[in-house]
This record gives sequence, C-alpha cells and structure tokens, in this order.
Amino acid sequence: MLESSIIEKLQQIVGNKNVSIEKSDLICYSYDATQQKFLPDVIVHPETTGHISEVMKLANAERIPVFPRGAGSGFTGGSLPTRGGIVLTTERMDRILEIDQENLVATVEPGVVTEQFQKAVEKVGLFYPPDPASLKFSTLGGNVAECAGGPRCVKYGVTKDYILGLEVVTPTGDVITTGGPTMKGVVGYDLTKLLCGSEGTLGIISKIVIKLLPMPEAKKTMLVLFDSIDGAARAVSAIIGNKIIPATLEFMDGRTIDCVREATDLQVPEAARAVLIIEVDGDREFLDKQAQRIAEIIQPLGVVETRIAETPAESEALWQIRRSVSASLRKVNPDKFNEDICVPRSKVPEMIRKIDAIADRYQVPIVNFGHAGDGNIHVNIMIDKQVPGELEKAESAIEAVFKGALELGGTMSGEHGVGIAKAPYIPLEITPQVAAYMKGIKQALDPNNILNPGKIFLD
Amino acid sequence: MLESSIIEKLQQIVGNKNVSIEKSDLICYSYDATQQKFLPDVIVHPETTGHISEVMKLANAERIPVFPRGAGSGFTGGSLPTRGGIVLTTERMDRILEIDQENLVATVEPGVVTEQFQKAVEKVGLFYPPDPASLKFSTLGGNVAECAGGPRCVKYGVTKDYILGLEVVTPTGDVITTGGPTMKGVVGYDLTKLLCGSEGTLGIISKIVIKLLPMPEAKKTMLVLFDSIDGAARAVSAIIGNKIIPATLEFMDGRTIDCVREATDLQVPEAARAVLIIEVDGDREFLDKQAQRIAEIIQPLGVVETRIAETPAESEALWQIRRSVSASLRKVNPDKFNEDICVPRSKVPEMIRKIDAIADRYQVPIVNFGHAGDGNIHVNIMIDKQVPGELEKAESAIEAVFKGALELGGTMSGEHGVGIAKAPYIPLEITPQVAAYMKGIKQALDPNNILNPGKIFLD
Repeated sequence: MLESSIIEKLQQIVGNKNVSIEKSDLICYSYDATQQKFLPDVIVHPETTGHISEVMKLANAERIPVFPRGAGSGFTGGSLPTRGGIVLTTERMDRILEIDQENLVATVEPGVVTEQFQKAVEKVGLFYPPDPASLKFSTLGGNVAECAGGPRCVKYGVTKDYILGLEVVTPTGDVITTGGPTMKGVVGYDLTKLLCGSEGTLGIISKIVIKLLPMPEAKKTMLVLFDSIDGAARAVSAIIGNKIIPATLEFMDGRTIDCVREATDLQVPEAARAVLIIEVDGDREFLDKQAQRIAEIIQPLGVVETRIAETPAESEALWQIRRSVSASLRKVNPDKFNEDICVPRSKVPEMIRKIDAIADRYQVPIVNFGHAGDGNIHVNIMIDKQVPGELEKAESAIEAVFKGALELGGTMSGEHGVGIAKAPYIPLEITPQVAAYMKGIKQALDPNNILNPGKIFLD
Repeated sequence: MLESSIIEKLQQIVGNKNVSIEKSDLICYSYDATQQKFLPDVIVHPETTGHISEVMKLANAERIPVFPRGAGSGFTGGSLPTRGGIVLTTERMDRILEIDQENLVATVEPGVVTEQFQKAVEKVGLFYPPDPASLKFSTLGGNVAECAGGPRCVKYGVTKDYILGLEVVTPTGDVITTGGPTMKGVVGYDLTKLLCGSEGTLGIISKIVIKLLPMPEAKKTMLVLFDSIDGAARAVSAIIGNKIIPATLEFMDGRTIDCVREATDLQVPEAARAVLIIEVDGDREFLDKQAQRIAEIIQPLGVVETRIAETPAESEALWQIRRSVSASLRKVNPDKFNEDICVPRSKVPEMIRKIDAIADRYQVPIVNFGHAGDGNIHVNIMIDKQVPGELEKAESAIEAVFKGALELGGTMSGEHGVGIAKAPYIPLEITPQVAAYMKGIKQALDPNNILNPGKIFLD
C-alpha cells in the first residue's frame, strides 16, 4: 500500500482524473493475456512526456516500482505489476502526430492502437507491415517494448525494423531522444534498437518515429492443404530454398485443423493434415507468375487441395481458417499455454517431430500453428488445469519444447518476449556471461531497479 | 612502451608469428583513412576467439588499452591506437564458415573482406546488400563495428539490418553469443544491434551470423543529368514521394562533375550541373515499367539527358562517373575532409543550399555527392593544408555543416561513425542525458575502459 501523500503527489503531477486507486480499476489493470493477476497500488494515466518524467522521478525518490503498460495484451506478463506499486498506462497518449508522406516517416504517441495506425497510413498509400495477432487492441508502444512480430514478418521484418527513433523517459526520469527521422544514423550507440524489445525495463517510450513503406500494388493469397505436416514443412523450405520470400507463410497442423473443424462450419477435407497460407505481394503482373512458381514447387509434397483467392473478399475468406484458430482452440480446451519458439526455417519439420514426441511422452495435446516462413511456431499445450497433475505435465512439456528448439539453434521466443512467463527458463538459453552483460546494462540505467523489476530476469 | 614480459605473454597466447613490435609493422597499423597516425606498442594477430579472450584478460589485468582493427579503412579514426597499447587486428580470422542456402544465412569470421563475401554468396544466387565504397578491402567485422552503409541501403537498409547474431569477446574477456540464426528472437536485450555500430568500444566481434536475400532477378541502371542540383534533389523527393524506392539513388553535384571532367576523359555535357544514378532491381519485366515511371516523374525537373543501360557492361559504364569521384577529387585538391551528414530525404535541397552558403561564407570549395535516396550526403571540404588559415576555415565550415544538418532533423553521420574525428562535435547532437545513458552502458561493460578508449566520447 502506498501512503496517501504519494497518491497526492501523483495527482499533482498528472491531475486527479488521471490517478485511480479504485479497487475496480486496480483489478482491470492487474492482468494481461497470460491471465495471471497482480494487484497494483495505483493506476496513473500520463498525458504528456513531462508527466511520465515527473512520475519516474517521484518513484525513484520513493523507491516505488513502476510497471509501464500499453493494452495489456502481452502473452508473457511483461506489463504485470508483480510487485504492486504504480501501473503507468500510456493509453491516453494516443495521437498520431505526423504522417510525413514525402519521407515515408510517421511520428506517434505510444498509446496509438496498431490497427488504427495501419489504417491511417494505408489511407495515403503507405504501409506499416508489423501485424501481431493483437493488432486490433495492442498499442504501438507495447509493440515496440516487446518487438512484436506477425505473419508479414517473414518478408518485411519485425517491429524493430521499422523504428527509426524514440523519445524515452529513462528509469531515473530524464527525457532522451534516440535516433530520429533519418534513414541512417551512426552517432553513438543504437539505443533505439536496444530499447525495442527491452520489455519496458530500460525506459518508458513516450514517442515513436516509424519508417513506412509504399503500399504494395496488389497481393495474392493461396491456401494449400497438405496430407501431412511434414509435406507442409518441406514446402516452406522448398519455397525459401528456391529464393522466393512470400509476404506471409503461415501454417497450421492437423490438430489445429481438427479444432477449427469442430468449432466452426469452415470446410476442410478430412484428408488435410496441414495447411499453409501463402501470400505474395508486389507488382500485380508479377504475382500470377510467382504464385504459379510456388504451386509448381510445392506440388510434389502431398498437396490435397489448392485454393487461390482472386478478389480481396476471397482472400478474406481464405484467412478465416487461420483467424478462427484462437477461438476454436478455446472452445475445445479450457486452458492453453501459448509458446512461440523460433528455429531456423529449415528445421521446422524436425521441430514438429520433436513436439509430437513430447506430446506423446507427456500425454498432453499440443497444437501447432504460426509463422512457418520464419520458423516461428506457436506451440499450444492444451490442458484442463482443474485436472490434478495436468499443470505439471504441461510445465514439463514446455521445458522439453524449449530445450528442443535450442538444440536446433533456435530460441524460446520469436515475438512474445520473456516477461515473467519465460524468465525461469532464461538459463536454458542465455549463459551467465550474457546475462551478466545484460544485467550490467539494466543496472547502469536503472540503479534502483524501479522500472518493471523482475521481468526478463527473475532477480 | 610495454614491458617485455607483456610481449612474451602475448606471444604465449597467440604464438610468436602473431605478435610484432617491429617499427615497420607498428607504422603500418598506425593510421586509417583519416590519414592521422598514432603508433601502437604492439600488433597482435589472433587466429581464434580464444586468442582474443586471453588477450583481453591480460589487457584488463595489466590495464593496457586494446584497439580492435579490421582493414583500417574507416573515415573517422575508429581503429586508431590513440593511446598506444595493443592493436588487435582480425585480418587472420578470415574464413567464411558457412553459407546456408536453405535458411539464407551465412556465418563468417570478422576478417572476411566484404566484396569476397558478396561474390561467394552471389555464386549461389544469394545477395548481401550492404556495399560501402571500401568493400574491396574493408572487412565484415569492421562493417559491423561501424554499421557501414553504401548506395544500395536506400532500398535494402544498412549492415545492421543483416546481422542476426554475433560471437563477441567482451571487454573483460568473456566470450558471449548474441542473437542467432533464427529470423526472430526476443529473449533478453538485443545486444546484437547494440554492438553493431558501437565502433569496437563494447566488445570485439569474433563471429558474425548474416541474413541473406535471394538475388534480384535483374537490375536496370539510369544516369540522369540535370541542369541544377535543385532539380536533381527535387527528383529524389518526387521519386520517393511517388512511393517508388529504387535500389540506389546516388547524386553528384556540379562541382563533383567538374572534378570528374577535369580528371578523367568521361563525357559529361557542360550544361549538366547535377547527376543522379538511379538503379532499380527485381523482376525483369517489372523493371522497364518502373524505369519508365521514374523517367516520367523526373522529366519536368530540368533533365538535360537520360542514359539508360541495357546491358551489364553499359551499366558498369554509367557507374564509372560515380566510381571516379574519389580519385578525381584527390587529383584536383590536395586535402579533403569527407563528412557524411544525413537529413530526412525531403530536406536534401535545403541542405544543399545551406552547404552552398557555408562554402561562400568560409570561402572553401565544398563538393557534394552521395546517397541522396536516404538523405546521406558526402560533404567534401577541399583545401590545401599547407596554405595558412585553410585548416581553420575548413574546421569552421565542418561545424557549420553539422549544425545545418541537425537543424533539419538530421545527424552528423549516416554511415562513417564518430571515432575521434567527430567526437569533439558530439555535444552538438547528443544531449548530456543521452550521453550519460550511453556512457553508463560503456562503463558497465568495460569497467577499466580498456577497449578502444577515447572513441565516440573524448573522455
């Protein structure tokens, strides 16, 4: 519990209407997509960078932990107020400040919702590729803090690749700017990229300078059903190995298809044990040629059926299968652990075989889908927590999955981050020397360990 | 001077043949492309990561500064042994360890020469875009340390955008790996990007994991002569503003053309006061359409002549004008200061006007060329240092150019780095708060300030 004098000081900084200690508010900001709950002491809604700076100075002076938060849509608990204190939410800093069409650069506040930003730039023929599944509600600030990905990343890269500069409030309350609106810049260390994906532990993002691309002229969507997951995985390798990088290369395994079939009225033949959704984009005339080439490459790999969208409406219809996955999984199973390992693309078939063996060994259903094009597999371990012993089996399976990914040169997380969910497993991936190097940076910048403490590293 | 016991220990670590204190060797490693000279005490040629680690441990124990060096082709003195001590050159670690065609990933040692690497991947249909002018001799380790750029960066990004992972020896001698061969990864801080462009101050790169692209099917080169630099600069804005991003968009101003005309037998009409070299790449059929569209967009902006290459040989011929610039400048003027400011693309015309005014004010010839497509201008201040007062005029002009770029939202350096050449100007661009944040990182990782001390920041 914070003293009332602290609450008063916070009210003086951001105004009464931007501070809440109401129980109902505290509960609303106590959880994220992990469904874990930690009650904060107070919610603060800054409206300006100056507000954030003053809050951080107060927090430092009084040694109160501060937990920055976008939309709270993260899968690893990055925004959870695990030690009480202040939840600082950026949702009232939600203005698109500029879309500079001449330089293909935009400047936004951190609370702008990703999809709203995408629509705003698309209106003027521009394109912001990163497309996390949460884009309808997640914020750009959160996307930057976690370095969000999405289906289009196979061709276009992740959030970090589009961040040219930041305004950031440091853990000690200084306001700094990193990078800027130029396409290049090598003066001093690249703090911009260091802050991207630092999960709100090194600074609070108060402004974002974003690189945009011209909108591709057209796109073409193909949905291909395979008779085995191995065929689909080999198709991914074959496409990339033939030097074609589609805009998206999504896959779903047989169990995912079964869930979708059970939960929706979408038509998928029984013979289909894997799905690839392949989208190519660019010059209109080029797309037919590229789609044709892809069809030829994958044909020998057990294709059951190929559906090609000729119109945007048909493309949307093809995407329905992929979009219905999360809801379908929820209908079929009460609880799921959603991991997002990433392996070198060519190792996807081997990783899938490892996951199948793990599912057998621990007797837990595991459903896989995700961004096959960059080897980023969403591994969903489905259990019912109420059944005794299920949680323990799931935890053993998760650790086995992580170890399997690391054995193949992969990583525990392609786009979800570490937060608290993966922090216990950090020693599997990061050596003590690397951890010391990272912790040295954290300690130098946040000497009182005030900002989002206990994330990434447990201590 | 180092004690002979230190030299003996270095010989024990890397072997006698890999240590030199010969005066002639010390001189060879005393300078870089800035033409400044600082004599080191000893040259060490590690052959393995273990060698580097042991050298760093010794240097830390004995408090001897270590200056890592690739080919010594930098323009800002990043590799100069300004405080004596050890020059650690990676040129004997020059193996391409793997080109993984399935995953489009390569692994190399730091001493591999950039062009040799490009040729090796091109042989198998792959593409490594970063192309600094020094690529015939510069090393990939140096390119990563400085985050090198080049003409193709306008479309393809800089060195950093292709570095997936590193093996690095920390200033205290630990060996760490950062990132890896996966396309995504968000476990812990992004040390890979932090180390890119850190100018050898945070760690010594001992291995590099590189992302490759499929080789574009074809390219098309256009050389366009304009009657004014303003027309050429507006052409750049018009192309980008029309949502076309060519693979390269290089420019040369009138004074550069005059130098080339004087020093070579290349034919450039007197009416041409600016040149753009525009290259588009991609699908063969698409290129004609794109080149045609570009020609239409720029036609009203004072085009004197357009030359389009139809064959690779013709393309090479067009590039001759650009490639002859450096040698031509040297022929015409004894000394030059080569700066590389970067401004938002649309500000290039305004920046050029500012530079013209600065040249007039300080009465020094300034010759501009460079990567117009990303606003990265190579500003060459031409003087004869032997003439009294010339050096001071040049220094005043340089400071005015930096201030002009910063006023337009730009940076002092797009691709050359800070080193010692720009370190005195750092306070123009970086606030004390940002500097403190950066120095905090350096101090945390290099507590004894052993590794490349005095670079980026003077103190």
